[in-house]
Amino acid sequence: MYYIGIDLGGTNIAAGLVTEDGVITKKVSTPTLLERGPEPIIKDMGNLCLRLIQEAGVALSDVRSVGIGVPGLANNDTGDVIFCTNLKWHNVPLGKLMRQIIDKPIHMENDATVAGFAEYAAGVCKGARNSLFLTLGTGVGGGIVIDGKIYSGTHHAGSELGHMIVEMNGRLCTCGGRGCWERYASATALIADGAEAMKGHPESDVYKAAGGDADKVTAKIVIDAAKAGDPVGRQVFERYVEALAIGIIGLINLFDPEVIALGGGVSAAGEFLRAPVEKYVREHRYCGDVEQPKILLSSMGNDAGIIGAAMMGRG
Amino acid sequence: MYYIGIDLGGTNIAAGLVTEDGVITKKVSTPTLLERGPEPIIKDMGNLCLRLIQEAGVALSDVRSVGIGVPGLANNDTGDVIFCTNLKWHNVPLGKLMRQIIDKPIHMENDATVAGFAEYAAGVCKGARNSLFLTLGTGVGGGIVIDGKIYSGTHHAGSELGHMIVEMNGRLCTCGGRGCWERYASATALIADGAEAMKGHPESDVYKAAGGDADKVTAKIVIDAAKAGDPVGRQVFERYVEALAIGIIGLINLFDPEVIALGGGVSAAGEFLRAPVEKYVREHRYCGDVEQPKILLSSMGNDAGIIGAAMMGRG
Repeated sequence: MYYIGIDLGGTNIAAGLVTEDGVITKKVSTPTLLERGPEPIIKDMGNLCLRLIQEAGVALSDVRSVGIGVPGLANNDTGDVIFCTNLKWHNVPLGKLMRQIIDKPIHMENDATVAGFAEYAAGVCKGARNSLFLTLGTGVGGGIVIDGKIYSGTHHAGSELGHMIVEMNGRLCTCGGRGCWERYASATALIADGAEAMKGHPESDVYKAAGGDADKVTAKIVIDAAKAGDPVGRQVFERYVEALAIGIIGLINLFDPEVIALGGGVSAAGEFLRAPVEKYVREHRYCGDVEQPKILLSSMGNDAGIIGAAMMGRG
Repeated sequence: MYYIGIDLGGTNIAAGLVTEDGVITKKVSTPTLLERGPEPIIKDMGNLCLRLIQEAGVALSDVRSVGIGVPGLANNDTGDVIFCTNLKWHNVPLGKLMRQIIDKPIHMENDATVAGFAEYAAGVCKGARNSLFLTLGTGVGGGIVIDGKIYSGTHHAGSELGHMIVEMNGRLCTCGGRGCWERYASATALIADGAEAMKGHPESDVYKAAGGDADKVTAKIVIDAAKAGDPVGRQVFERYVEALAIGIIGLINLFDPEVIALGGGVSAAGEFLRAPVEKYVREHRYCGDVEQPKILLSSMGNDAGIIGAAMMGRG
């Protein structure tokens, strides 16, 4: 039996045929062209599934279900997308429209949530009853797995780990709130802090690599500078590690998971990020009497969205 | 069938015989005398159960199980108390020692966790699939119910809602960390902030009621002053409401529960607390597109510990 997983992004729609064990056997994609609005996009998603099945040479009856990771909130019970900010979707009957093209059970969840589920189904969280997944990218996305199942809350609006508040009346967030964790622990925050810190430091690696242009600072520039021992880079990165670790400590005190997986752009820093975060957490967490959750780098990369979405159908 | 619930406190041990519906039919208690150490205390707990059954006139076979709410962490799977700070217990085989006196299944969880479960079983969280419970007392304790079951994490060290970090490098916490929520949202914080704010304000209600003595400030004094429109009381209480609401917003973004129940000493302020917290949350939360969780005052009072502990056996 196979499961189709769809990763609905702002630029591309990727669909993959996934085995029971979470392995992609075939992958196809098509541009999203998001300005078209939901209906033609969903039509393309349905047709992409049919094309996938055909190109993979399997029968429609060999596919149990279709899972979709959406860049926003979706109600898996009703089959409706609640909203996707980037796509400008609002109350879209995704499940119903999909089933008009491919008549299979349609599952849907937030994209970070399904990526977290992929780590549980086939990645570094495999075998863990309770795990958390973080995407350190434009924001901080999160996936929660409790007792082997996706947890996204009563109205599928939970699991927004990046919007845990870590600084009362702190930095203004895109959500309208203040002090959300993602304002300190996302790639966006690392970049903004790097751009700010390089000011007046033309000798710094960050300044040189960005040509002194705040708009040219990237997470990689800051991380590479920190790795090379550049004082500006190090200071910014150490502060970033601290902010990331402080949020993780809060999450451990709430969820006490077996594993916390770090994914998304900043996690490309690898051990240079993971090791100091783990150390900070060990030295500052509340409950030293019980085992510390493992803090691991995510292993699924870009395929996590497809695999996690597909695995929702495994039940 | 009946269930015994035990509320193990630093001063008293209370045990109650509880019906399937979460109603206490008989209650007995005995002093803890905590300096004795675990073994004689546990012996008293077991004998208290036997006395309860006898005085209630029921047969031992009418009792399905014994549940215990402990002021610390306990591993319900192994039957061991991990630690209780106040009692100075550390790795105590509570389940095994209890069964030597009363041979029934023994359940155990943190006291705030069982109080939260009581609200789910028979209080204001009844019927809610996912709910959170807060005790606003010396610290901020928490109970998490997910899918109708207690959630306390992999090592029973989760659900420590008071140790979510809401201020990076903020106030020093008793846990050794900094910026934990309970340093801003507990009765202790309300009292400390009241004592601080009344300095140099002998005209304030807070100062007058406490006779200018910082050690005589209570949560009730601050709340009453705020209710009466006293500027010092109002300022402190408004800051308290904000800190409480900010933590709740973070929890909503993580858990998206149906109900959040406010319990513990400060919740005695009633609507005067609940209404502004609800208002702040409504105005500042992230996801306005979905229903806001209900924020309610807990209804179980002092019996919550007994009832919640007992109801763990209902399965």
